[in-house]
Amino acid sequence: MSKLRVAVLGAQGRIGSEAVRAVESAEDMEMVAGLGRGDKLETLVEAGAQVVVELTNPGAVMGNLDFCVRHGIHAVVGTTGWTDERLAQLRTSLAASPGAGVLIAPNFSIGAVLTMQFAQQAARFFESVEVVELHHPKKADAPSGTAARTAQLIAKAREEAGCAPQPDATSTALDGARGADVDGVPVHSVRLRGLLAHQEVLFGGEGETLTIRHDSLHHSSFMPGILLGVRRVVNTPGLTVGLENFLDLG
Amino acid sequence: MSKLRVAVLGAQGRIGSEAVRAVESAEDMEMVAGLGRGDKLETLVEAGAQVVVELTNPGAVMGNLDFCVRHGIHAVVGTTGWTDERLAQLRTSLAASPGAGVLIAPNFSIGAVLTMQFAQQAARFFESVEVVELHHPKKADAPSGTAARTAQLIAKAREEAGCAPQPDATSTALDGARGADVDGVPVHSVRLRGLLAHQEVLFGGEGETLTIRHDSLHHSSFMPGILLGVRRVVNTPGLTVGLENFLDLG
Amino acid sequence: MSKLRVAVLGAQGRIGSEAVRAVESAEDMEMVAGLGRGDKLETLVEAGAQVVVELTNPGAVMGNLDFCVRHGIHAVVGTTGWTDERLAQLRTSLAASPGAGVLIAPNFSIGAVLTMQFAQQAARFFESVEVVELHHPKKADAPSGTAARTAQLIAKAREEAGCAPQPDATSTALDGARGADVDGVPVHSVRLRGLLAHQEVLFGGEGETLTIRHDSLHHSSFMPGILLGVRRVVNTPGLTVGLENFLDLG
Amino acid sequence: MSKLRVAVLGAQGRIGSEAVRAVESAEDMEMVAGLGRGDKLETLVEAGAQVVVELTNPGAVMGNLDFCVRHGIHAVVGTTGWTDERLAQLRTSLAASPGAGVLIAPNFSIGAVLTMQFAQQAARFFESVEVVELHHPKKADAPSGTAARTAQLIAKAREEAGCAPQPDATSTALDGARGADVDGVPVHSVRLRGLLAHQEVLFGGEGETLTIRHDSLHHSSFMPGILLGVRRVVNTPGLTVGLENFLDLG
Repeated sequence: MSKLRVAVLGAQGRIGSEAVRAVESAEDMEMVAGLGRGDKLETLVEAGAQVVVELTNPGAVMGNLDFCVRHGIHAVVGTTGWTDERLAQLRTSLAASPGAGVLIAPNFSIGAVLTMQFAQQAARFFESVEVVELHHPKKADAPSGTAARTAQLIAKAREEAGCAPQPDATSTALDGARGADVDGVPVHSVRLRGLLAHQEVLFGGEGETLTIRHDSLHHSSFMPGILLGVRRVVNTPGLTVGLENFLDLG
Repeated sequence: MSKLRVAVLGAQGRIGSEAVRAVESAEDMEMVAGLGRGDKLETLVEAGAQVVVELTNPGAVMGNLDFCVRHGIHAVVGTTGWTDERLAQLRTSLAASPGAGVLIAPNFSIGAVLTMQFAQQAARFFESVEVVELHHPKKADAPSGTAARTAQLIAKAREEAGCAPQPDATSTALDGARGADVDGVPVHSVRLRGLLAHQEVLFGGEGETLTIRHDSLHHSSFMPGILLGVRRVVNTPGLTVGLENFLDLG
Repeated sequence: MSKLRVAVLGAQGRIGSEAVRAVESAEDMEMVAGLGRGDKLETLVEAGAQVVVELTNPGAVMGNLDFCVRHGIHAVVGTTGWTDERLAQLRTSLAASPGAGVLIAPNFSIGAVLTMQFAQQAARFFESVEVVELHHPKKADAPSGTAARTAQLIAKAREEAGCAPQPDATSTALDGARGADVDGVPVHSVRLRGLLAHQEVLFGGEGETLTIRHDSLHHSSFMPGILLGVRRVVNTPGLTVGLENFLDLG
Repeated sequence: MSKLRVAVLGAQGRIGSEAVRAVESAEDMEMVAGLGRGDKLETLVEAGAQVVVELTNPGAVMGNLDFCVRHGIHAVVGTTGWTDERLAQLRTSLAASPGAGVLIAPNFSIGAVLTMQFAQQAARFFESVEVVELHHPKKADAPSGTAARTAQLIAKAREEAGCAPQPDATSTALDGARGADVDGVPVHSVRLRGLLAHQEVLFGGEGETLTIRHDSLHHSSFMPGILLGVRRVVNTPGLTVGLENFLDLG
């Protein structure tokens, strides 16, 4: 079987350089080009790249993807900053190049994506649910974007199933003790030296609890998801948003 | 909306008496009969029972179900001891009474069932997986039946996905340190005063781990699953084995 | 060896009736009297009680202890409502009866007491520390009294050691996300159906975390601490406040 | 206040180079010399080193320490391979140089040392105790040395307190399910991609459990303990074995 010919855009960045190593280590892939700031996109065509891993920045990503789509190169995109306008623009350019596939994912950690999927599936079966996320103390926002998104997905699943509000007899509380309220789901943010990124979703019902915990201990946790995206995007024309669409769950 | 008319067989047992209370507390159900040893099954017909919760023993269950099926009464069955022969016999009697539905479930804890389902879904995405189950010290078997079953389901999912064997460089080990081998999945059994029934499935991949933990803190944890079964079995003719079939996952 | 002669005051209450069973099960104790509302304290003398377990209510406890101390009967006290005035009054009555010993403990769970002790010992070695407590959803106060007390003890230990404030770069936060501030220690309160009483103290330093977790799964968790108190109070004249004084730690 | 003048032996090794950075970052220390293979020990004297951090190998450590002790330079030693003979030899050389202090520690992680200390303190209060250690899958031995040592210390504390054997009704078990037996304490070893080094000590008693968990997420976790050793060894003449002696616990 011939190997997939893969290029990395943003190859000198922290995540980009890990992506280069990950592609080089994958037995079914060949690393054909690593482009940094100032390198010409034509190199991708000359190198015969079939798939590009796009890890640059919001200022560069639209131009890069436009080039790739026009040349029939598939793309797996970790760059952020997506708006409805940008997604519409990308869809338009994909419509003109029907063979090309693009995967945009806000999170390439398979563990984080599965946590959100399982949390949605479990949401309607339990009376109580809370989210605890734990991160290093240099983090600026609380709760984390992943935790807020998880709580929103849980709240939506509960609403669709017609769940009653969560039981909570708290009548005397210190400010903040019961966490932040995200669509009715309490979210608690712990900041602790020594940690990286961790999240626990706790469900409680009559006589039992179910806990789904994701621990990200190293930034390399994004690599298996990126490689999975590369393998799948070549057979998935058009735009796909979210790695969960490639996990064949359920 | 009229309430579901529910009867309990084995109503004086530990689980049975909890089931009676659970049915009585459910707003959409009416408890119409609770039968114990020696009570006549005809009572079920006289009471107009639509669903029976069968919590007796392997010696009584076949006769009870035969009666129910013949009288068009649906059944949710927690009694154990099912063999292929028994299942075949039950299917035959159901074939002659096409409206009746029977749910047999080895585990009515929704948390335990979801743990197994999620573990199967996650299995093919991680290089490593181990199971740790923790129970009270009066338990006779190790590992628990649920843990062994969970490990088997994980192993099957990994095999179907073509996963490589788990990495493990252990070259010097004390006997037992690496747990029991269940189809290639290490299973560890902890016995601790103060615990009831707990299970953790730990998945590990590049830079991240995913943990699914189920804690059963009281035997009442079976009740929500039994009630869910009652609500669903009335619209599910024929034989269903496993509560997971009623959870509409994925 | 002769057995310790023990009586229980408040023997019909929920904790009291468990205490009666615990004393009856202890090989080195003899249950000589169980008194309820309206029973005469003279029974204690007639029964030859050496130690009383006092589990009544704030309205009754002072009279009960005054009687015990005057008659040279030792006491292990779980009743709450202690003020500086009440403690002073008790010390005065003990001064007049120098052989008698009284143990008052706000918490008889050995696990809870050890958690607080270890948390104080560890406090000065880590840059970060937070407390997460998890309880059933019928609890009225948040955080729990034990969690608040634990945070205060940690804060005091850090202050005495001259620790710097905890690192925390949070600049954008939803209300409540970072928990309640108890003397500079964030405390988070989770309320979940299925739980009883649980507490986690998380310490974080360069490259590592230390977690001390206490799970109370049944109210019987107070019994080993009560029995330990009974055994020790007979040799500890005067007033002792806090079970930790009988644990011979460090 | 003048800064402590610190040198590192084995400065080019993985741990050694981190130690150099840690000393450089410490406000109360000055990094005066970093020696590698082939560098002359006289450099230590020329640089005016007061304390040496010894991170070389068993073949070099005795000569290095002999030099330090003779020149009145204190030492904090992470190198392994200590035998009774070696310790005796070191004590002899220290006796001839009474001002010098040497700290040898098998583990410089404060979290790991506290875990062992707390586990010993808690051991006699609970009926049940087991150890679960979790490491990356490249680890050769199972259980880890730290877990085995922890179990031995727990067993010793239980024996000294006259504790009964642990309750365990297991009558049917798969080989290995109940872990390795280390002096009567079951120890379970999990090997999982994504992990570094983690250990849980689980205690169980009537109605409650106490869990002490240490997570080492990065090798830098040794640095706070090494720096603490440097600060304390200058005022602690003679030989000290074990970082716990510098933690002023209890």
